[in-house]
Amino acid sequence: MDISQQERTYETSMADKSTPSSLARYLDGEFWETKDHIREEISQGEPFRTMLFGVLPSGPQLGVVCGLFGGAVTNLGSPGQKKKWYLPVTVCFTGMFAMTERGHGSNVRGILTEACYEPSTQEFIIHTPCEDAQKMYIGNSMKGNYASVFAQLIINGDSQGPHCFIVPIRDRHGVMNPGVTAIDMKHKEGLHGVDNGILIFDNVRIPRTNLLSKFGCVSADGLYSSPVQNKSKRFNAMLAALTPTRLGLTVQAIAAMKLGLIIAVRYSHSRRQFGPKDQQEVKIIEHQTQYLRLMPHLAAALALTFTTRFAACTMDHALCKGEVLQNNSSLQALVAGLKAYSTWENLACLQECRECTGGMGFMMENRIPALKCDSDVFVTFEGDNVVMLQVVVKELMTQFTRQLGNSVVGGLIKTWTSSVSDRVRTSFLGFNVDTVGDMSFLLKAVSYRERVLQRSLATRLYNKVKKKREEFFDAWNSCLHHVTGLALAHIHRVTLEQFALAVQECPVEEDHTLLTKFCLLHGTSLVYQERAWYLEHHYLTPATSRQIRTQMLELCRLVKDEALKVVSDFNVPSCCIQAPIAGVANPRAEWAFYSAPEHPIRASKL
Amino acid sequence: MDISQQERTYETSMADKSTPSSLARYLDGEFWETKDHIREEISQGEPFRTMLFGVLPSGPQLGVVCGLFGGAVTNLGSPGQKKKWYLPVTVCFTGMFAMTERGHGSNVRGILTEACYEPSTQEFIIHTPCEDAQKMYIGNSMKGNYASVFAQLIINGDSQGPHCFIVPIRDRHGVMNPGVTAIDMKHKEGLHGVDNGILIFDNVRIPRTNLLSKFGCVSADGLYSSPVQNKSKRFNAMLAALTPTRLGLTVQAIAAMKLGLIIAVRYSHSRRQFGPKDQQEVKIIEHQTQYLRLMPHLAAALALTFTTRFAACTMDHALCKGEVLQNNSSLQALVAGLKAYSTWENLACLQECRECTGGMGFMMENRIPALKCDSDVFVTFEGDNVVMLQVVVKELMTQFTRQLGNSVVGGLIKTWTSSVSDRVRTSFLGFNVDTVGDMSFLLKAVSYRERVLQRSLATRLYNKVKKKREEFFDAWNSCLHHVTGLALAHIHRVTLEQFALAVQECPVEEDHTLLTKFCLLHGTSLVYQERAWYLEHHYLTPATSRQIRTQMLELCRLVKDEALKVVSDFNVPSCCIQAPIAGVANPRAEWAFYSAPEHPIRASKL
Repeated sequence: MDISQQERTYETSMADKSTPSSLARYLDGEFWETKDHIREEISQGEPFRTMLFGVLPSGPQLGVVCGLFGGAVTNLGSPGQKKKWYLPVTVCFTGMFAMTERGHGSNVRGILTEACYEPSTQEFIIHTPCEDAQKMYIGNSMKGNYASVFAQLIINGDSQGPHCFIVPIRDRHGVMNPGVTAIDMKHKEGLHGVDNGILIFDNVRIPRTNLLSKFGCVSADGLYSSPVQNKSKRFNAMLAALTPTRLGLTVQAIAAMKLGLIIAVRYSHSRRQFGPKDQQEVKIIEHQTQYLRLMPHLAAALALTFTTRFAACTMDHALCKGEVLQNNSSLQALVAGLKAYSTWENLACLQECRECTGGMGFMMENRIPALKCDSDVFVTFEGDNVVMLQVVVKELMTQFTRQLGNSVVGGLIKTWTSSVSDRVRTSFLGFNVDTVGDMSFLLKAVSYRERVLQRSLATRLYNKVKKKREEFFDAWNSCLHHVTGLALAHIHRVTLEQFALAVQECPVEEDHTLLTKFCLLHGTSLVYQERAWYLEHHYLTPATSRQIRTQMLELCRLVKDEALKVVSDFNVPSCCIQAPIAGVANPRAEWAFYSAPEHPIRASKL
Repeated sequence: MDISQQERTYETSMADKSTPSSLARYLDGEFWETKDHIREEISQGEPFRTMLFGVLPSGPQLGVVCGLFGGAVTNLGSPGQKKKWYLPVTVCFTGMFAMTERGHGSNVRGILTEACYEPSTQEFIIHTPCEDAQKMYIGNSMKGNYASVFAQLIINGDSQGPHCFIVPIRDRHGVMNPGVTAIDMKHKEGLHGVDNGILIFDNVRIPRTNLLSKFGCVSADGLYSSPVQNKSKRFNAMLAALTPTRLGLTVQAIAAMKLGLIIAVRYSHSRRQFGPKDQQEVKIIEHQTQYLRLMPHLAAALALTFTTRFAACTMDHALCKGEVLQNNSSLQALVAGLKAYSTWENLACLQECRECTGGMGFMMENRIPALKCDSDVFVTFEGDNVVMLQVVVKELMTQFTRQLGNSVVGGLIKTWTSSVSDRVRTSFLGFNVDTVGDMSFLLKAVSYRERVLQRSLATRLYNKVKKKREEFFDAWNSCLHHVTGLALAHIHRVTLEQFALAVQECPVEEDHTLLTKFCLLHGTSLVYQERAWYLEHHYLTPATSRQIRTQMLELCRLVKDEALKVVSDFNVPSCCIQAPIAGVANPRAEWAFYSAPEHPIRASKL
């Protein structure tokens, strides 16, 4: 195929884009107009950053500069501080976010950097007392001007716990502030758009007003005050500043998933290999293994789209009502869980996309390798996923205790009763093979699993801590497998519920029908993954469990052709897809071009 | 920690290496002396290639030049051809292997490149008739001198099926042979040591003697002859040439796994995070999730080590006895299955290693990212894993038919009887909770699963093809999920058996005890992964299934400290480990250094 032919295909696909389908609109949600506007700007080659942020350093650093540094300032600073440091960051200087230390990444509470107050000069002295206190993985550290540094606030030798300080690192000409050392950490697997380095402070003096003061401030003469008295609560309130960033990461993970799926689904509908004797080879999407590997991820991408929108709305409403996020611990838990689930799901999805596109998927020009390498770190940064799952479960345990009116013994009795009624109800479901294809069966199943895991974890912890007097850390650690299982069960349940709600509210019948199939697939896939657990708990019989498998295979087969419509309705501009195997020509790699697939259903209608 | 201290640690660990433990010897197997010699050479900085191969192009291309090009020549060529093209490849010129085409990767039988015989000049005319016939992903294509090219051998307009031809691509000065075009495919996710490109032939003439003639040759006047009459069998015989390469790939995958595990296990024993209140933080290996993520992979690495040795011995014996590999289809199937299992297992293992080492694991200096990116392609090249699994199952189905004496009806009756006796025996096992920790229980379980899946697949295929008269391709395709499940069940069973045999034969009691635990863990992990299937088939009761889970958790906990000894006994020279977080200093990344962990058991004895 020559280039002129490629361009025609490209133009046709662009023309298609100009009128988004009703499903594309529905997937965009409330802000589709804004999104369309952004797509147009991107497609016209207007640098995205110019439109949104004025003069900004190049793209990938955006997350660090605005999301992390800016997030710290807006969430932890006073109104005056926001004005001073957040607005200018978009035009005058660049920031960085210095929380993680060599010795403390996940366990932020244990950071060792010190900020000692000196009343005589009204300054804080920021200091790195040992190797373990070095600030590590700091994005933008080799260029940035200011850092939001988390350090133990020390007044008269007493620590008030971690607080956040604005520390000048370099002036506008790049000259280092005396006492600050920055070391480049050099090469990483991905995210090459951001440098990462180490910051070391040797008694660096900053004005008293550089302490972000929303949750704690120090008077000129060294008196500490905070709206949150309890030290532990205060610390948690500060960590809540990370919630919007984590949601942002979820959005990025979903975007990567979608891009991977667009590429893999399109190629699977173009590429042919093997087939019945003496006939044309079949499209590789026709191979059972191929659609089984891709379709559940496509369903999950849709579920995550709706769930993330739900979380974002909740957050918006909270912020509009002037609520402070740190009081909304269930939102924090939801976002922590979403962050873990979406980033892992993204990695698994991209890996399948890579393998399903074979050697072509290994070539950089087809995008998947870079997507994988860039988003790999998502699962351990901004809160390691295993830690995130524990955040979820701590909230679930709190909710559980609250429900029981703080009476654990009474709780156990109620629990037992509820457990019995669950068993009766579910045995009925378990034996009725016909119901497994029903949305309500799937919703009940994932909800049952969450509830049982929650109850049994509470009981186990109670026995270990209260009866056997085990140290809490040990008790918790010996249940970690249970904990992570519960957290994922929780987030799975939420995604299925949000997907089901979105299906229910979908106004266009055709879209409703299509989304219903994907929603059933998502639910079936969740139950299928955990069918051993359901069998162990007599929620599924061996016969219904096999039925679930059959249903998985059947649903994946059923949606494989419609997948092409769904990935098209993700409505990603061609210039963002780029991958030649997805039908978007790239003059650097003409050899990789496959013309965009025709929709098999539309094609068969002609 | 300063560098002199780092060097001391480094020297100590090198000193340790000089006297390998009995376990290290046992893991090395029969050829430990050769391996020790190679280690010494590597540690002394002698370039590996000099010692083994004389003047050779740099390392990573070794696989392409010797393994692939060389493999084609030695396995498909006549003795004279071997002398002419294999020996010189190590000193005079470099080769490449051109099988895959744009249109045909997995389905090699469908390749379109043509080799037409012209009796008047006694030449073959090698030609690329269309875009789909372009040879793709050819390693060393931008530099190599000769290519072993697979093409349809055409005599008087009739195709004799794919054959392999030696085609000169460039002379020694790099000047292209007329009619040959090479296009660079440029950037890939990994394996940057080998270039990959496209080869296109425009009526390139080569002498008649350049057809590798072991399985087919053409006389001067154009008469074709072959020792294998059946075209399909002849084709399969040629594909058998890939068997040694696939085994080589398995060895590489295991090496990558081991390296990843050395790094992750050591770091997990040094790095501390979280802990009981007011006490020192614990080593991260103490977190239940951490040891659950790493230990099953360590067990699998051991199982694969012994299984690969078994396959290599079988191959050696076959070759020594002068057997032709293509007649040993069960060996071919074993190697195909091992290739798929080991390369997937390696990817999963490296991903866990990356995540378990957090941000440090994302830094290139700590090696894991490059290991991941380089070995990612293993799962789709030299035979896509999904295709490999089908190779395994085709052999299993053949064996099954053979066992039944070709009488499918009689077979079904026998099958049913055997199935009943299985059920009786296993119900007994299923209900006896105490037996699940027993090696023989685990061996029986994995063997039962393989047998049942084999039987039921045969029945399903029989019903679809014989009774319902479905096209074989469609019948097979609709069972692909079953097929891949059976293939993995087969290879899982073989790895567990080979591991158990190695444990049995281990002469040193202490090592025997240690290996027993890892072997139990490997078996437990295999059954745990498939516990849903066992529950569905009443092989496990809900109670025994939970027992399997408990056993998994317990075994992982039990071996987490001994893991340090095992990774040390992999006996990989420090200069090959390099990763600073594993305690091997690297002057380029002093900041990443963690001193090598002390063995917790040894330490506690002091």
